[in-house]
Amino acid sequence: MSKKILVPLATGFEEIEAVTIIDVLTRAGVNVLTASLDDNKNVKGANGIVVVANYTITQIDVDSLDMIVLPGGWDGTHALTDDENIQSILKKMNEDQKHIGAICAAPFALKQADVLSSNYTCYPSVEEQIKQDGYTDQSKVVQDGKIITSRGPATAICFALHIVKNLVSEQKYQELKGGLLADFC
Amino acid sequence: MSKKILVPLATGFEEIEAVTIIDVLTRAGVNVLTASLDDNKNVKGANGIVVVANYTITQIDVDSLDMIVLPGGWDGTHALTDDENIQSILKKMNEDQKHIGAICAAPFALKQADVLSSNYTCYPSVEEQIKQDGYTDQSKVVQDGKIITSRGPATAICFALHIVKNLVSEQKYQELKGGLLADFC
Repeated sequence: MSKKILVPLATGFEEIEAVTIIDVLTRAGVNVLTASLDDNKNVKGANGIVVVANYTITQIDVDSLDMIVLPGGWDGTHALTDDENIQSILKKMNEDQKHIGAICAAPFALKQADVLSSNYTCYPSVEEQIKQDGYTDQSKVVQDGKIITSRGPATAICFALHIVKNLVSEQKYQELKGGLLADFC
Repeated sequence: MSKKILVPLATGFEEIEAVTIIDVLTRAGVNVLTASLDDNKNVKGANGIVVVANYTITQIDVDSLDMIVLPGGWDGTHALTDDENIQSILKKMNEDQKHIGAICAAPFALKQADVLSSNYTCYPSVEEQIKQDGYTDQSKVVQDGKIITSRGPATAICFALHIVKNLVSEQKYQELKGGLLADFC
């Protein structure tokens, strides 16, 4: 059975981050479910790019998920932070000890759900909004238990590859890292 | 007047590459026109991600463009190579000494239009299909005159930033490189 990951797409999501996560995880054979927060599945990102989500968030069977991964972008992050469905899913995934990922501004939404790990990273200065010790800027990707965080658009490939290593295999990680030409990860 | 760039989206386009180009150029203040090759503006990429194009290719006023940039993906590249409108636009842009960009497999579509520069790069092994001397794998981005080529998904941010340096300014390049956390470019 292939692993199943939810990537919610909120209006104002950062497009490089969201698409990189979906693209790389799909290449790894993961079943990636994208979901809009409301009935409009055509979701506009922070830079005006419209991506069509496969589902609306209420259609998602949370128990079937192996992971949820949040793309950044400030407006998108605020929407994920304020959305009751997303906050509820984050808490449930954490209780069930499943993987949770967030990049760029999105660790802010994990903090709101009280699921942010002790050690984490995020987009520079977002840690001032998160107001929690344990922030580091010394690594593109930080894993603490089942929580994986990363920094911004240019770290999105390394973040997605790190998720592949956790959810799929070291072999698939190495294969995709080579195929994507991501020697800097 | 902001610069105007065309990014054609053919079915099977590589999503990280296309979205990175559109995202970064939009951040730079460039007017990015995305265009489908036919009447269906919901275009599915190589990994199943559907992006909504702003225009269809026949709606584009070629004379108003400052540059055309082709994302890769093998199926997308073959479609760009076989499409009369795209091939005609590439030839016209080259005659008018405007910038042309292509990443990953897409330099193959430049070769078909006879506009590929003497020095170029592309996705590893695609040079065997292109069958033209001047290929290098020693640089993430190669510029030769007005033709800019790059290698694959993980070089897309550096490619897009290089275009910003050419079309906008060194200052905007530095600003975005910092903002995207792209210290490896």
